[in-house]
Amino acid sequence: MSQKDQNTIQSDPGQESGSYTEEDRVYVEGQCNVVTESNGPFPFDEGRKLPELKVAYETYGKLNSDKSNAIMIFHALTAGAHAALWHKGDKRPGWWDSMIGPGKAFDTDRFFIIAANVPGSCYGSTGPASINPETGKPYGLQFPIITVRDMVRAQAWLLDDLGIDVLYAVAGGSMGGMQALQFAVSYPHRARGIIAIASTTRHNAQQIAFNEVGRQAIMRDPGWGHGDYLNGSGDEVEGPAHGLAIARMVGHITYLSEEGMHQKFGRRQKDREASPNPFDIDFEVASYLDYQGRSFTKRFDANSYLYLTKAIDTFDLSEGFSSLENALAEAPRRFLLITYSSDWLYPPQQLREVARAIRRAGRSATYCEIDSIYGHDSFLLKNEDQEDFVRGFLNSLEREEV
Amino acid sequence: MSQKDQNTIQSDPGQESGSYTEEDRVYVEGQCNVVTESNGPFPFDEGRKLPELKVAYETYGKLNSDKSNAIMIFHALTAGAHAALWHKGDKRPGWWDSMIGPGKAFDTDRFFIIAANVPGSCYGSTGPASINPETGKPYGLQFPIITVRDMVRAQAWLLDDLGIDVLYAVAGGSMGGMQALQFAVSYPHRARGIIAIASTTRHNAQQIAFNEVGRQAIMRDPGWGHGDYLNGSGDEVEGPAHGLAIARMVGHITYLSEEGMHQKFGRRQKDREASPNPFDIDFEVASYLDYQGRSFTKRFDANSYLYLTKAIDTFDLSEGFSSLENALAEAPRRFLLITYSSDWLYPPQQLREVARAIRRAGRSATYCEIDSIYGHDSFLLKNEDQEDFVRGFLNSLEREEV
Repeated sequence: MSQKDQNTIQSDPGQESGSYTEEDRVYVEGQCNVVTESNGPFPFDEGRKLPELKVAYETYGKLNSDKSNAIMIFHALTAGAHAALWHKGDKRPGWWDSMIGPGKAFDTDRFFIIAANVPGSCYGSTGPASINPETGKPYGLQFPIITVRDMVRAQAWLLDDLGIDVLYAVAGGSMGGMQALQFAVSYPHRARGIIAIASTTRHNAQQIAFNEVGRQAIMRDPGWGHGDYLNGSGDEVEGPAHGLAIARMVGHITYLSEEGMHQKFGRRQKDREASPNPFDIDFEVASYLDYQGRSFTKRFDANSYLYLTKAIDTFDLSEGFSSLENALAEAPRRFLLITYSSDWLYPPQQLREVARAIRRAGRSATYCEIDSIYGHDSFLLKNEDQEDFVRGFLNSLEREEV
Repeated sequence: MSQKDQNTIQSDPGQESGSYTEEDRVYVEGQCNVVTESNGPFPFDEGRKLPELKVAYETYGKLNSDKSNAIMIFHALTAGAHAALWHKGDKRPGWWDSMIGPGKAFDTDRFFIIAANVPGSCYGSTGPASINPETGKPYGLQFPIITVRDMVRAQAWLLDDLGIDVLYAVAGGSMGGMQALQFAVSYPHRARGIIAIASTTRHNAQQIAFNEVGRQAIMRDPGWGHGDYLNGSGDEVEGPAHGLAIARMVGHITYLSEEGMHQKFGRRQKDREASPNPFDIDFEVASYLDYQGRSFTKRFDANSYLYLTKAIDTFDLSEGFSSLENALAEAPRRFLLITYSSDWLYPPQQLREVARAIRRAGRSATYCEIDSIYGHDSFLLKNEDQEDFVRGFLNSLEREEV
C-alpha cells in the first residue's frame, strides 16, 4: 500500500463523508505519518524478534520544554496513526478528530498528542504485509504473533525515540483502551493518567466468537492461500476479499446497537434493478453492510485482521498475576473509564468491574456510563459527555503530584 | 438427501447427544415423516404456482372422533417435521421432545399433534433442492420466493388433507412463532388458541443484518454457483459449504446469550496439535462454533437457508393492513406469548408490543417473560416454566366456547 493510501483511507464507520465544510478543516501541520525504526531488534512476547520494526505515527500540538505535556492516543482494531485533523485531499479527518484539536478535549493548544499505528497493522507500521528482509517477500504468516503487550512495547520504544520519559496521559477506545490499560501495567511510571473507553481487560466467549467467525470467513476463502496472497511486488492480488468483507460485516453489526441500527435503516428497501437472483440486496441495512464490507477490503489487509483480532482475543491484563487487582498494584494512581449504555460488544459491566479492581488496588477510578443509542461506535462519534469527562479528568491530573 | 438423513440429522443446538438413557426413549409409532401432496397446483404469494407441493409431516397421539383435539406445531428455521419422540437408531429425539409426549405440555395422551416441514426447507417438503418436474433438475433459484404466508398456506392444505377443520391450538417458537401468528391472521377460524414463543411479527434492522451476512457468506462462496451446485442426481456436490458454515456460525452466536456462552466455554483453550497456522482454532467456544458450522453443512441445503431467512426477513404480519391491531381484528380470541429474558435475537420487547396490539384488537393475550441465561435457544431446552404456561393455556382453552 502506498503512503498516500494509508492516509486517505481510514476507518470511520460512524461518520459520513461530505458533511464537512472547508471551515471545519484543520490541516495537519506537524508530524504526518512519520515512520521511525526501532533501535535494534524488536522482541515479541512469543519469543521471536524482528530485525527492525517500523512505527508510523502522527503528532498534533507542540511538545513543551520539559516534555511534560505529551498524551499518547491508541487506536482501535482497524484504524491507524491518522487520529486527528485533515490531510490534504481527504474526504474526512482523522478517526478521533472530534476529540483532538485546538480547544477540544485533547487540546492541542496545550498538549502534544502522539498517535502511532500498532505493529501487525497495515497503515505504515511493520505488519504481515511488510516485506521480510530475509526473504524479500511479505511476511504473511511468518510474522510473529502479536499481543497487546507487544503493541504497548512498540509505543514505549517510540516514546524513547521521541525522548519522552513520562506521559501526561494515555487514552484509547476499544483495542485502544486495552493498550491504555496494558500501558498502565507494563509502564506504570511512564503515564500520569490512564483513559480507557468502551473496552475490557479480557474478552468473554461471545467477543471471541464474533472474531473467530471473522477469522474463519477469511481463512476459508480460497483466495487466502494460507496467508500468501500478496505477490511481494507491493501490489495486492485479490486475496480473500470475500472472506474479509464478511468478517467486516459481522464486525460492523457488533459496532452498532439494535436501536441505532433500526433508527438509521428500519426495514426500508432500496430500489434495485431487475435481477435473476431473488437474493440480491434490497434492505437498506444490507446495502450499508455490503458497502462497508467491500470498502474495507480496499483498505485493510486480511492477515492484519487475523493478527489483530487474535491479539485482542488472547489479551488478558491479569495474565502472570494472581488477580487483576494485583496486576494493577503498581499502576498509575488515576484512571478514567468510560462506557456506553448501548454498547453490547463491550458491555458497561466489563469496565465497571475493572473500576472496582482498580480501587481494590488502592488506585483511583472515575467510572462513567454515557447514555447513547449508537452502540460500541459511540466513542468515535462527537459526544459532549465524553469530551467533558476527558477534559475534566485531564484538568484534574494537573493538580496531582507527579 | 435420503429419507433416512432427513430423520437422523436434526437441529438441536442446545442438547448434547449421549445424555439420553434407553428408558427415556419413546419411539414414534404413528405417522412418521409421511409425505402428502397438494391436491393440484400450489400458489405462492409471489404469483407463481408449483404443479405439486409435497409436505412432510409427523403426528403424535390420536385424533379423537370429532377431530377437536389436534394441535399444530410449527418449526424454526432449520428444523423439520420430526418434532418429538425417537426414530430408531437416532442419537437424539425430535427437536421439541421436551414439550411433546405422554403427560408433557403438549400431552399426546390427550392431543393429536401434527408437525410439518415448511415448503422451501430440505427435510421432505418441496424446496429448492427438490427436482423441478419441468426440467428434471433441482429447482435451485427457480424455486418460487417463499413467505411465511406460504408456509401457513401449506399447513392449511395439510389440515384439509387430514380432514381437520378447526385446531385446538397452533404453536411454535422463532420462525415457528411467526407461522403461529400468521395462522391467526390467515385462518382465524381454524384455531382456538395461538402460542408464539421467542418470536416477532417483523424483523428489525439488526435481525435482517445478521441474516444478510449469512446469505452473503453463502452467495460469495465460489461453490454456490448462483444456486446451481446440486448436480441433480440426488447426490450433493460440495457446494457452498464454507459459506454455509460461516452463516451457521454467525446464526449460532445469536441463538446463545453472552452469559450462557461464557458459562459454557469461558476463555478455555483446547489442546491443539502443532500447526504452521497460528490461527488454528484454540478457544473452546471457537471449536464449538466450528463443529456447529461443519455439521450444519452436512444436514442443510444452502439454497434453503437463503429462501427461509429471506422469508423471515420480509415477514410483516401487518402487511396489507393499516396496523398490527387491524391485522388481528378477526383473529382467534386467545393468545399465549412467551419470551426469554436473555434472548437478544428476539428481545422480549417485541412480543410484549404484540401482546398490546392483540389487546387493542379486543383479543386476550397472556404474555410471559421467562428468566433464563440461555438466550434464544431457551425455547428448545427443557424449561418447566414454559411447560407450565403452555399446559395452563391449553387447559384454559377447554373452558372457552368454540
